[in-house]
Amino acid sequence: MVQQNLKAADVNNNSANPIENISDILDADMKAVNAIILERMESHVPLVQQLASYLIASGGKRIRPLLTLASTAIFNGDMKRAHLLAACVEFIHTATLLHDDVVDESDERRGKASAHTVFGNQASVLVGDFLFSRSFQMMVDDGNLDILRILSDASAIIAQGEVMQLTTANNLETSMNNYMEVIKAKTAALFAAACEVGPVIAEQDPDTAKNMAEFGMNLGIAFQIVDDVLDYSANQEKLGKTIGDDFREGKMTAPVILSLEKSSPNERDFWKRCFEDQNQNPEDLMHAMKILNKYDAFTHSMDIAKTYAQSAIKNLDIAPESDLKKLLIELVQFTIEREY
Amino acid sequence: MVQQNLKAADVNNNSANPIENISDILDADMKAVNAIILERMESHVPLVQQLASYLIASGGKRIRPLLTLASTAIFNGDMKRAHLLAACVEFIHTATLLHDDVVDESDERRGKASAHTVFGNQASVLVGDFLFSRSFQMMVDDGNLDILRILSDASAIIAQGEVMQLTTANNLETSMNNYMEVIKAKTAALFAAACEVGPVIAEQDPDTAKNMAEFGMNLGIAFQIVDDVLDYSANQEKLGKTIGDDFREGKMTAPVILSLEKSSPNERDFWKRCFEDQNQNPEDLMHAMKILNKYDAFTHSMDIAKTYAQSAIKNLDIAPESDLKKLLIELVQFTIEREY
Repeated sequence: MVQQNLKAADVNNNSANPIENISDILDADMKAVNAIILERMESHVPLVQQLASYLIASGGKRIRPLLTLASTAIFNGDMKRAHLLAACVEFIHTATLLHDDVVDESDERRGKASAHTVFGNQASVLVGDFLFSRSFQMMVDDGNLDILRILSDASAIIAQGEVMQLTTANNLETSMNNYMEVIKAKTAALFAAACEVGPVIAEQDPDTAKNMAEFGMNLGIAFQIVDDVLDYSANQEKLGKTIGDDFREGKMTAPVILSLEKSSPNERDFWKRCFEDQNQNPEDLMHAMKILNKYDAFTHSMDIAKTYAQSAIKNLDIAPESDLKKLLIELVQFTIEREY
Repeated sequence: MVQQNLKAADVNNNSANPIENISDILDADMKAVNAIILERMESHVPLVQQLASYLIASGGKRIRPLLTLASTAIFNGDMKRAHLLAACVEFIHTATLLHDDVVDESDERRGKASAHTVFGNQASVLVGDFLFSRSFQMMVDDGNLDILRILSDASAIIAQGEVMQLTTANNLETSMNNYMEVIKAKTAALFAAACEVGPVIAEQDPDTAKNMAEFGMNLGIAFQIVDDVLDYSANQEKLGKTIGDDFREGKMTAPVILSLEKSSPNERDFWKRCFEDQNQNPEDLMHAMKILNKYDAFTHSMDIAKTYAQSAIKNLDIAPESDLKKLLIELVQFTIEREY
């Protein structure tokens, strides 16, 4: 794939966060989604309710349900169905976060203590299961088998991607191909599904649905690569989490893999000690940053992200011209320009 | 509810294990289910495949898929669909076991080291998620929304039941009502769903489906109460797990709750130390058994189980007379007569 940088002119640096702009256009819809989320996480078991509320209240970007809303609205689909299914997508995402919290022992997520440190591993696993089951109940309420197929396929792919990630963590042999496979599965598959649901609701032809799924896939890949760069370089306050989490966990992400390809034997020993032997000193993160910068690993990673962002914008050719389409393009650009 | 003991004459003590008898009658069907299980747990991610194989190979009673097969065959339903959906039910059950392993830190299950001690908590959670998602993909393959509803409802109920169980563990205030609510949700709901699927496949009227669901519910309740009695009294070799696990974990099960209702202040202090304070000595299990026997807690628990078993047999009135029906009745009787 030829790498094309986004031209500076493509990017509207003066705009506010386009996620907020889309939220503004779809404000009534997003409120409807939030109401459904609140209604459907209700449980007669107090702890389920508490933990679900805690998670949902902690917010996050809500980018996935927004994609479902936008990809429905852009094709003039039934927004009532989009509300329900956008809530489904957010439930699946939240369940994944809960199970991921158990997984990667991250102490903070979205700037708050993660759910499992507050409620315990066991509750996190089970409330994740509840949200996941509940999302399937909601899909059954919608009653469209194509959509059930799209979201159950995505769920199976996500789970396998997370397991794949387990086997790549702390493993210096992880290639860029392995990494791409992991992020496609664990992140981009749900972005793709969230965007494919829209044209299916709007009864567009399969080609349009496929294109929108690819839009989501490319956007999701770009989003995750940037996330992995930001884990070393973000504006810590805006990001709401500590820099260097991936380093401390020994996660094999794009910047590390790319610089490992060029590293000297000494540098390789450094990564081996920090990642494979998990033997780290407080000053190691600074040293890692030095190596990563030396090989332009961040720039190189961002170039790859930008290529996917370009493809995502190209995928939108299939959508009719509208303010929403412009905002989706801005969203793609924001994804690679953001500092958090 | 009036408690009626099953009369000795009702029970065919000379028969082999009726689960095996049903398996014999449905042998070709059970083989078809096993083939689907093997085929559908395939993943391109080696660790997923390994862990799933490990679990499925370790076997267990396969009572749930057998119930789906029997409840389909008894109404002359399409067995090809029953094979797929029986495999779904087993996947949901296996996913639950995996997540339960993370939950209750039991060291052995089915006489083997449990999955999470071999593969780690993280892999258990994620492979559970995979099996769960895969089961929904299979339901979508079947394409019946009523069945998707039955099994997604059951899944949501199970998850809530498991969370409820978390809040009752180590809590002496747990009442028999709380306990019944937990076991209905965490165990009997999947038995009920497994039995409801059959008449739905066979296109029976809703009343018949409802009755078979109740059959599964009553059988599942009896099954779980007996399990909880056997945790203190089983033939350890046949059960394939250590006696006293529930005691060591401080699980509030029928025998403990029933004897607590009658316990002296001294005895209550004993339960408080062992269960709430989790401060146990090796000789405490013997002392607990003494208290449980003193108040006939096992007999009393078994009486309750037998009442549910009677109701289950009554629910089968709706099914046409057949060898399979006789065997299902024997299965109910075996559930309360078994030593493991």
